[in-house]
Amino acid sequence: MQREGERLARMGLACVVEPGDPRVGPLVGEFGAEEVWASLASGSGRGVWARRAGLVDVDVVWRRTVELGLRFVVPSDGEWPVGLGSLDVCELVQESRGAPVGLWVRGEAALADVVGRSVAIVGARACTSYGEHVAADLAGGLVARGCVVVSGGAFGIDAAAHRGALAAGGVSVAVVAGGLDEAYPRAHAELFDVIAGAGVVVSEVAPGERPTRRRFLTRNRLIAALTQATVLVEAAWRSGARNTVSWASACGRPVLAVPGSVHSATSVTPHRLIRDGEAVLVTGVEEVCEVLGPLGPVGSVGPLRERLLDQLTGVQAAVREVLPARGGRDAGEVAVRAGVSLPVCLTTLEELALLGHAEVTDRGEWRLGRVHDKPVGAGDG
Amino acid sequence: MQREGERLARMGLACVVEPGDPRVGPLVGEFGAEEVWASLASGSGRGVWARRAGLVDVDVVWRRTVELGLRFVVPSDGEWPVGLGSLDVCELVQESRGAPVGLWVRGEAALADVVGRSVAIVGARACTSYGEHVAADLAGGLVARGCVVVSGGAFGIDAAAHRGALAAGGVSVAVVAGGLDEAYPRAHAELFDVIAGAGVVVSEVAPGERPTRRRFLTRNRLIAALTQATVLVEAAWRSGARNTVSWASACGRPVLAVPGSVHSATSVTPHRLIRDGEAVLVTGVEEVCEVLGPLGPVGSVGPLRERLLDQLTGVQAAVREVLPARGGRDAGEVAVRAGVSLPVCLTTLEELALLGHAEVTDRGEWRLGRVHDKPVGAGDG
Repeated sequence: MQREGERLARMGLACVVEPGDPRVGPLVGEFGAEEVWASLASGSGRGVWARRAGLVDVDVVWRRTVELGLRFVVPSDGEWPVGLGSLDVCELVQESRGAPVGLWVRGEAALADVVGRSVAIVGARACTSYGEHVAADLAGGLVARGCVVVSGGAFGIDAAAHRGALAAGGVSVAVVAGGLDEAYPRAHAELFDVIAGAGVVVSEVAPGERPTRRRFLTRNRLIAALTQATVLVEAAWRSGARNTVSWASACGRPVLAVPGSVHSATSVTPHRLIRDGEAVLVTGVEEVCEVLGPLGPVGSVGPLRERLLDQLTGVQAAVREVLPARGGRDAGEVAVRAGVSLPVCLTTLEELALLGHAEVTDRGEWRLGRVHDKPVGAGDG
Repeated sequence: MQREGERLARMGLACVVEPGDPRVGPLVGEFGAEEVWASLASGSGRGVWARRAGLVDVDVVWRRTVELGLRFVVPSDGEWPVGLGSLDVCELVQESRGAPVGLWVRGEAALADVVGRSVAIVGARACTSYGEHVAADLAGGLVARGCVVVSGGAFGIDAAAHRGALAAGGVSVAVVAGGLDEAYPRAHAELFDVIAGAGVVVSEVAPGERPTRRRFLTRNRLIAALTQATVLVEAAWRSGARNTVSWASACGRPVLAVPGSVHSATSVTPHRLIRDGEAVLVTGVEEVCEVLGPLGPVGSVGPLRERLLDQLTGVQAAVREVLPARGGRDAGEVAVRAGVSLPVCLTTLEELALLGHAEVTDRGEWRLGRVHDKPVGAGDG
């Protein structure tokens, strides 16, 4: 981990800004992290960030990070996952938005590599044995297909997903809500050790910070944005897992949900999401992979265009498919034809534009990007 | 039951034409039932219908019908359900199509009255106790909301639905595949007696006719067309209940499906239909009623326009909603905007036209019917 101004400034910011505060991204984008941090650390500000900055000694946080065997990853690092960018352009979810200013990471693997082809499996802590069974099966099946399983390290569905992935010899990622100095829940200390062995454990808050209710919710946005799709296994109506689903939708990531007995309280949320068209019903790993699209084996090489298309999520592919090669189509019509909501459509169009798949016409309409302007036909595999 | 030429001719036709033969409707529409029957009965024809007609003595069938306490209902009767008309305009399902030429009915109630507000509950014979439980619960709940429950009188889900409706003090309709002289299955003879007490038992084939595999499938189209929606409770992948679902879709009726364990073979078809967007997930009677729309209690009176809208099925309402009050929109675009397939859209537009809700413009596009040309806004209840 290189000790340079940008990284130290972002570490400082990460210590004073609550995760998901939508104000920090635009500010850093405008002035740069170093200038924003210098201004806060100088004591000239009068807001809560400046007051907190007065209490932070970044050198202490840096030393603690190194002592714990962690690293602090920032956007300029090669291992910074591009998927987090969708958090800067998505709609607000419970007043929150935005990529993290940096991430504390435990584990040798490069973060961008492990989440490059990953699926989130989330659900209730208070789940049934049916839910645990399904989560572990899905995780094992995904691992067998070269996917990494991302979850939140909690009791219940999260733990079943991590363990299912590990038991199948796969890699897992835990994104936690508190600092990486202490396991939460404590009972999962050993689980996190095993996860960090081949995968990584990630947190947006500094060592020593406590997981709060709000941090569990903002942590969920990282799980959603780091992965290509989110599978909800079980959740009662009032469950934090629903929040992860909101984030996945906001980021334009496909949301999948597992059905269960109509008499089971923990299947209420999956059923409702499926019914409302916010999630696609999945009963097994083949169906999860169908939604992910034909990704092919990890590291496979193919013709450039095919690889470019393979990288698209289901939603991205659906939106791309209705873009005209000539002329243009307004975002509203694109949304209707692709069968997605307008906010999701707009986010997805921005993502496609970043990937070169979409561009805006002079009239403010959308068309296929000129780089890959051949529509995807039946014969495109 | 009035003994007149039209009824006798249709009875004769019902004895020689296999249910669902798509050729009979257009023929009768063109020449009239009496002329078609006279031609077949004269022995001049050389096809299979003429050969069969030579073996039919309509007087005998008439007497048998009366002896058994049945009646033979034809389209000119007041109790003929208008919903059967959708079978004449729908796409072919396994080579079949078309309203029946007539129906043998057992039970005092007028057929059109009992099915006026009805839901089909269908599913596998080889179901689980979970499926039986759900079917009976749904049936009881529908009865409590003034709905009649229609099913096929078979073992498994069908029987659970009928019994659930009867146990709740409601009315049920059994549409069976064989003649009404003999119960099939025999074990349900008493069940059919009870159903006929307040509701009706219906068949498209004459007394003495056997239920064949083909007749079970064509019988399913009556269950779909007579009701406002079809709920599939449990069905393995190779199940006849899937066929009822195809008919409901072809007729533009909403298809609802109940989820279950991903480990249960009898939930494979409901899950697949939900996943493919061919059915809406329902977990209870409230959700079934949501899809049916705000029908209000039976016999309720309200402003005319509201009543007209209340009569629409979910699909009809969805298609109506995207019709422009001015100008026109081609059927393809209506289908995309309403989120239905083109064949379903075309059928639904025909139904809406019959109800005065839609009309074709000079350019062959569709618009709201002039009778009710106010779009349905948020304040329309």
